[in-house]
Amino acid sequence: MNYRKIYNVLGSILLIEAVLLVLPVMVSVLYREGFKTTLSFLITMAALALTGFLMRIKKPEKESFYAKDGYMLVALTWIFMSLFGALPFKLSGAIPKYFDAFFETVSGFTTTGSTILTEIEALPKSILFWRSFTHFIGGMGILVFAIAVMPKTEGSAMHIMRAEVPGPSVGKLVSRLRASARILYAMYIGMTVLLIALLCLGKMPLFDSVCTAFATAGTGGFSVLNKSIEGYNSAYCEIVIAIFMLLFGVNFNLYYLSLKGHVKSALKDEELRWYLGAIIAATLIITLELTFTHYPFVQSLRLSFFQVTSIISTTGFSTVNFDIWPTLAKIILLMLMFFGSCAGSTGGGLKIQRVAIILKNAKRTIKHAFNPRTVEGVKMNGRSVDEETVSGVINFLAIYLGVIFLSVFIIAIDGHEMLPTITSVITCINNVGPAFAEIGPAGNFSAFSNLSKVVLTFDMLAGRLELIPMFMLFSKNLIPSKHA
Amino acid sequence: MNYRKIYNVLGSILLIEAVLLVLPVMVSVLYREGFKTTLSFLITMAALALTGFLMRIKKPEKESFYAKDGYMLVALTWIFMSLFGALPFKLSGAIPKYFDAFFETVSGFTTTGSTILTEIEALPKSILFWRSFTHFIGGMGILVFAIAVMPKTEGSAMHIMRAEVPGPSVGKLVSRLRASARILYAMYIGMTVLLIALLCLGKMPLFDSVCTAFATAGTGGFSVLNKSIEGYNSAYCEIVIAIFMLLFGVNFNLYYLSLKGHVKSALKDEELRWYLGAIIAATLIITLELTFTHYPFVQSLRLSFFQVTSIISTTGFSTVNFDIWPTLAKIILLMLMFFGSCAGSTGGGLKIQRVAIILKNAKRTIKHAFNPRTVEGVKMNGRSVDEETVSGVINFLAIYLGVIFLSVFIIAIDGHEMLPTITSVITCINNVGPAFAEIGPAGNFSAFSNLSKVVLTFDMLAGRLELIPMFMLFSKNLIPSKHA
Repeated sequence: MNYRKIYNVLGSILLIEAVLLVLPVMVSVLYREGFKTTLSFLITMAALALTGFLMRIKKPEKESFYAKDGYMLVALTWIFMSLFGALPFKLSGAIPKYFDAFFETVSGFTTTGSTILTEIEALPKSILFWRSFTHFIGGMGILVFAIAVMPKTEGSAMHIMRAEVPGPSVGKLVSRLRASARILYAMYIGMTVLLIALLCLGKMPLFDSVCTAFATAGTGGFSVLNKSIEGYNSAYCEIVIAIFMLLFGVNFNLYYLSLKGHVKSALKDEELRWYLGAIIAATLIITLELTFTHYPFVQSLRLSFFQVTSIISTTGFSTVNFDIWPTLAKIILLMLMFFGSCAGSTGGGLKIQRVAIILKNAKRTIKHAFNPRTVEGVKMNGRSVDEETVSGVINFLAIYLGVIFLSVFIIAIDGHEMLPTITSVITCINNVGPAFAEIGPAGNFSAFSNLSKVVLTFDMLAGRLELIPMFMLFSKNLIPSKHA
Repeated sequence: MNYRKIYNVLGSILLIEAVLLVLPVMVSVLYREGFKTTLSFLITMAALALTGFLMRIKKPEKESFYAKDGYMLVALTWIFMSLFGALPFKLSGAIPKYFDAFFETVSGFTTTGSTILTEIEALPKSILFWRSFTHFIGGMGILVFAIAVMPKTEGSAMHIMRAEVPGPSVGKLVSRLRASARILYAMYIGMTVLLIALLCLGKMPLFDSVCTAFATAGTGGFSVLNKSIEGYNSAYCEIVIAIFMLLFGVNFNLYYLSLKGHVKSALKDEELRWYLGAIIAATLIITLELTFTHYPFVQSLRLSFFQVTSIISTTGFSTVNFDIWPTLAKIILLMLMFFGSCAGSTGGGLKIQRVAIILKNAKRTIKHAFNPRTVEGVKMNGRSVDEETVSGVINFLAIYLGVIFLSVFIIAIDGHEMLPTITSVITCINNVGPAFAEIGPAGNFSAFSNLSKVVLTFDMLAGRLELIPMFMLFSKNLIPSKHA
């Protein structure tokens, strides 16, 4: 393991985080918040700068950088980012316990959106801004960001990209990494700015628009209001946000394709069709059920469309306490948590592409059992998926389930009811945010023990980084040795 | 598809079922039950005999018998057996709706033990006997039974065995099928007789001993008392039953090995060690939790050991309403439902062997991600499992989850709470019996809609037959055609 190199890159990332903290400091000054709040950011910046500087003192002796180096770097980066990112919450007094602050920060960076806060609106604006900003940073991956802005990373970029970008295959963008990353960021920022403008048009205050747009872009789900998007009481804003949640759950490569004029082939993308199909089907079924049981048709459609896009994109905003909905609606939302968004988007979950491959492989397996002589490939977009990817996806599913089982087991020690015990893990590993019962849209995670919070933090990171990097922390390679 | 041959074998099976019904008729006569009850069995026997006879009129033109013929035969056999087996419940008036009677019979043959009955003790003895006897018949597989007793099945036996016997590999027994099947049955019956004797020694009435032994041997779980085994109020009987549930969850090949003098190598079996390890670990954790929260230590240990063996063997007896236990205990029981018993036992679930292979493969996948150059096999019992079996197991898991998802989706329409909605499917596909909340040990499935009962019936059969055969029912091959 090339630890010198890992610490070097990690140091650069921490310096970047220090720079990013300039924004909340500006917010703090702008709103003339007390000295304590501003200072909490400044101290954090100083700590980041110092640590980053120290990590970069020793230059790496060799440039070799393998897959495991990439995984280790990614895991350590996200953990360190969160460890430091939690400081402003603690130092400003916004979140009294550092442990809770760390949970909230990981929830932010991983774009989960699960919160331990019971009273959000009482917090200083700069703290709320930083909380939402972590979603924006986490959405596209801080390391990919580093690739885009830093020189001389081309060599190791591939391994980092593979470890940080969600989805079963990194795709065609890898070939010209830095250029591609910059285009992706331009689109990401462009769409976010557009969303801010549209929300301001809907008379949402500028500050709220910015924070909400950050949380939407990263498919995170932190809101600055206690009642989430419901608090704005604006059908226009709800629909705009719902559409953008849908858009941020789409593979960004498709936007890239469209920009280059290949709109038709982008629209033909199979994963996109599954994604839209799932949204339409889920929205219709839930609308029908709600029309029969709860609200008039138009309201049912609006609430249903919002909640479906919110959950499938793994954002987690709410415009209603869906925990009171009938069982079928809740079961559909629970299933959408697993599906998640498209590969190459900012969303979480298993990813539609994986779900499609799993289903197609299941169909093939059954066919093969009936006619053992048939040999058939799994196809996506009309082309055969190579068998290594297929078995990779199925193995991913098995590990994912293993993590869920083990996590549920530990969280059960807390003694919450069965449903929140199980769904807390599901919502965290899929980076959604809310779940059911006491951790539904109207609840929060404050009642969970520290042990459970550690487990859920692990799950959020494992979900965002797609499992493998987090296991690096348990490998014997963690402690640097001369022989490694 | 060789339909003539399939119908021919199916006809023979129905004739066997007619013969097996002689036993409940004898019970009915012995206990001098009303004419109506006895007649219900006689009519069923006549219907079976007639149908079986008609099916066997046309002799098959060809002997060819492929995998898909085997699957189709197995699926049709279990469905027809249950369709006819449900008649006595309906005709005698014990279960007013045929639909419910069918559910109960499938639950019996698949050794699930989920019931729609609210008042069990009021039923005639012969009906209770038949209900428990279905567990005994289903336990080792009626088709394997047919192989053992019928001549000229050697050719197609392999495909039948593969389709009906649980577990990822059929094992060494296949080589001399009929001889092996007979030995298995001898052991199965021998152990059952021993259990009856032991229960009688514990002052359980003979009738109850026989029925309870049937349900234990098949790892079914139907009891003749409303309060299940708790109703006997006998620590001795509880412990005897717990030990036998454990024993019937073990791979019968190991008993065969032991009988041949290879006790040591049987005890070294890796699946057995996982199985016993899981039982010991689960029992200890639940005992500890119960000691802190509910009962004195010795009682906790007794209740915990009984419930753990009951659930992991997928029997489903209860000596307490475990639905009131703390969350960790319930989560452990829920997980044991998935694990299930050993391959080659009468139990259900994923099977310990599959769980072990899934976990080992997950470990290997993670290792491989860190060091892409390493190539490592998955080992069981010190030998490499061939890759086809490994990917077969993982594919099985994916299909299994797909069936669970789809089933939960349909059952959610009923509008029961989330927990019983989800766990009804889990307990049925794993052939356990009880689940949680309204379908816990103190409840039953009577509140489920007919649609849900169809789905759960499908799940029980899919679980018992290990998924693939049931999909044959949706294949285009179902309707015989000249070109098939």
